[in-house]
Amino acid sequence: MPPALSLSSRSLRTADSPISYFIQKAIETPGLISLAAGLVDESAFPSAEIAQVVAEMMANPATAKAALQYGSTQGLPALRARVLDRVCTADGVKPSDINLTLGDVVLTTGSQQMLYLLGEVLIEPGDIVLAEAPSYFVYHDCLKSHGAKVIGVPMDDGGMCLKSLEKELIRLELAGELKKVKLIYTVDYFQNPTGLTLARDRRPKLVELAKRFSKHHRILILEDAAYRELRYDGDDITSIKRFDTTNEYVIYTTTFSKPCSPGLKTGYSLLPNDLVAPVCNLKGNHDFGSSNLAQHILNRLLETGAFDRHLVRLREVYRSKRDAMLTAIATEFASCPGVRWNVPAGGLYVWMTFPSGTPTGKGSPLVEAAVSEGVLYIPGNLGHVPNEQGKVPDHEIRLSFGVAEPSEIAEGVRRLRRAYAELETSKRGARESVLT
Amino acid sequence: MPPALSLSSRSLRTADSPISYFIQKAIETPGLISLAAGLVDESAFPSAEIAQVVAEMMANPATAKAALQYGSTQGLPALRARVLDRVCTADGVKPSDINLTLGDVVLTTGSQQMLYLLGEVLIEPGDIVLAEAPSYFVYHDCLKSHGAKVIGVPMDDGGMCLKSLEKELIRLELAGELKKVKLIYTVDYFQNPTGLTLARDRRPKLVELAKRFSKHHRILILEDAAYRELRYDGDDITSIKRFDTTNEYVIYTTTFSKPCSPGLKTGYSLLPNDLVAPVCNLKGNHDFGSSNLAQHILNRLLETGAFDRHLVRLREVYRSKRDAMLTAIATEFASCPGVRWNVPAGGLYVWMTFPSGTPTGKGSPLVEAAVSEGVLYIPGNLGHVPNEQGKVPDHEIRLSFGVAEPSEIAEGVRRLRRAYAELETSKRGARESVLT
Ligand SMILES: Cc1ncc(COP(=O)(O)O)c(C=O)c1O
Ligand SMILES: Cc1ncc(COP(=O)(O)O)c(C=O)c1O
Repeated sequence: MPPALSLSSRSLRTADSPISYFIQKAIETPGLISLAAGLVDESAFPSAEIAQVVAEMMANPATAKAALQYGSTQGLPALRARVLDRVCTADGVKPSDINLTLGDVVLTTGSQQMLYLLGEVLIEPGDIVLAEAPSYFVYHDCLKSHGAKVIGVPMDDGGMCLKSLEKELIRLELAGELKKVKLIYTVDYFQNPTGLTLARDRRPKLVELAKRFSKHHRILILEDAAYRELRYDGDDITSIKRFDTTNEYVIYTTTFSKPCSPGLKTGYSLLPNDLVAPVCNLKGNHDFGSSNLAQHILNRLLETGAFDRHLVRLREVYRSKRDAMLTAIATEFASCPGVRWNVPAGGLYVWMTFPSGTPTGKGSPLVEAAVSEGVLYIPGNLGHVPNEQGKVPDHEIRLSFGVAEPSEIAEGVRRLRRAYAELETSKRGARESVLT
Repeated sequence: MPPALSLSSRSLRTADSPISYFIQKAIETPGLISLAAGLVDESAFPSAEIAQVVAEMMANPATAKAALQYGSTQGLPALRARVLDRVCTADGVKPSDINLTLGDVVLTTGSQQMLYLLGEVLIEPGDIVLAEAPSYFVYHDCLKSHGAKVIGVPMDDGGMCLKSLEKELIRLELAGELKKVKLIYTVDYFQNPTGLTLARDRRPKLVELAKRFSKHHRILILEDAAYRELRYDGDDITSIKRFDTTNEYVIYTTTFSKPCSPGLKTGYSLLPNDLVAPVCNLKGNHDFGSSNLAQHILNRLLETGAFDRHLVRLREVYRSKRDAMLTAIATEFASCPGVRWNVPAGGLYVWMTFPSGTPTGKGSPLVEAAVSEGVLYIPGNLGHVPNEQGKVPDHEIRLSFGVAEPSEIAEGVRRLRRAYAELETSKRGARESVLT
């Protein structure tokens, strides 16, 4: 045995991904239909468009050189200009209306890297982040590795409950803990995992709340708009960022992974100006710039309009997959008392709630039955942080219609129903044996 | 004024890149020849090969899907297998000879990301890293942001002086500080910035030293082989990793940025097996995987042999650029007493030493004269860490022949000579005015 490694306290706070177990199950089980992974539809990738864009760029020595050389830490200026324009157009403003310039835009290795960098720049061990309950579980792990304490804020059909958020902030202030509150994290469009969207009228109020409680330092709102462009019903809703007219309180982050291709692993963010240098200085140490080729590809896809044409097609693909999933769930679970599910207007996820007393987590009868029926989901408990009593809701699941084919989706839901039926039978059996 | 941001202690330790000033100069000064940047030759990018590989991958639905979907945190298995084979072949061993498997290979966003991750996984503020003096200055900043103290180890023509390293380790042990020593960092092939290579016979000895002083915990060697494949004279030298036959003490890291294209921003590393999980867990939080498309492109370039054919051409391009630089320096500086330079057998850099009393750093007369003559270099002091007296050598410079054309290289060196001549004249003037 060699002498032991001596790992940093950060490393000791950093665990394996909680979904490794589910990925392993998926690999080990042939024929399994995965409604678990947040992967995206593969039949709809813009592969022809990417081939064409790359061929054009490589054929011209000037553009080939530009794409194959190192880029900059902050990211390709042309692409930064396009995404700034894109977000502002969606919000019906000019960048200057909300005090934004090209210098406030940062490109990263997926939006995940920005989530990480922000934690690194802001969090001291013991600091507090307020997040929707449930929320994007990968970011919980990230925040844990920064040493943050995540406090969950209840949601209703309009997303994060601002009344509950306000109560929590008041409680923290009375407990002398407001000093530790650094971030309010919200996935405000078709949230991962619940599919819920923050209601239009809560958006300016959320900014006001952050301002009101910024008594010791600025409490920032991290608006993770990863799924904004995957809308299947109704009109786009203004971002929270739109209401941060001085560009001081809201970080807007989003990604090309979901509306285009995760293989390009490129995200983009609009940052309060005084946060740009701290974030880019750290990113300079991380990698001094993400893949420049990927940024050039995306820039051309946006420039030629291929991106927007692709998005129209992609929305149709996902709309019909979502419908396939909702139809299957309604058919299969209609007669199950206490089983509920959200009807998302976009994104990739349907959130199902089983009657309490139906644990869904790792090792639970439901997950075991589901795997042996041949379907995989993500347990809802992964998205929750324990409350004061150390408890998390354990009777929810996340289903993704991202990667499976419509026919697989329907079959996957049927398998889930069979798994649930086995549980009902064995419960009934247990009840009956108690009675006899 | 909004309330202040509250930044983490890590963020407060993280500064702007010290070369921002030089990049800014380069942008502001039209006609400037930059011998500063570590950028790579643009005329030699394998753009046709990349276009072809992408066209082929995108034309086949199965390969297009694989390349455009999310990859894995650890990186594309096929590419990991190829690079493992590549390094072991260069070292004349089979992976099993030195206890390596596919599971010990990790792909990152450039090798820079691995350098960062290793610091993050190993360093607690106050810990010590031993590094060549001078060394890769970007990594110094990284280590500073982790809170590490970097101690410089003198170099001679054979690279890091192991006698000095041993003395330093003994000194640290006597001072009770061995507990804090986590890493020995070496850029052991055509080092950035000096161009020096660690001598063949020092390599096994370095591993022995790390073992001998691993009294409290394992002291790891970080072998940064970024420039190994850019050799222009002589035969390749066995890696340090080759002598770590149990795969416990040496991390081998390198990159496709230098021998292929930095726009793909892909690095690869061989890690002691028990370091893989801590590094990948953290990388899972950073981005859960670097650009998958870039990894697929590189995999195909290696598979088709395009990569190796390109490398042969590239070495010729760089060899002639290096020769252009060395010829120009020999011509221009032959008659300058006390001016010396290294003759690198590979890499991208020539290291020049001026007589002491010729400061070369930011704001110095030489840098000012050079910029007004129209040439830019990197001051040597950036690569050094202050000694006990807070001093760093300040009369050295790094010249890169990476990006400039051969004719520009010669002209750049002539401009540097003129800048130096102005200094000599004004010094002589100063001496004469003292005499009169
Ligand atoms: C809410 C949310 N944010 C961020 C991400 C990160 O994705 P990427 O790094 O590919 O942009 C994801 C991915 O699933 C997500 O669901
Ligand atoms: C010694 C050394 N290591 C690592 C790197 C990182 O390069 P990359 O992240 O592009 O692989 C560089 C780049 O200049 C370098 O000089």
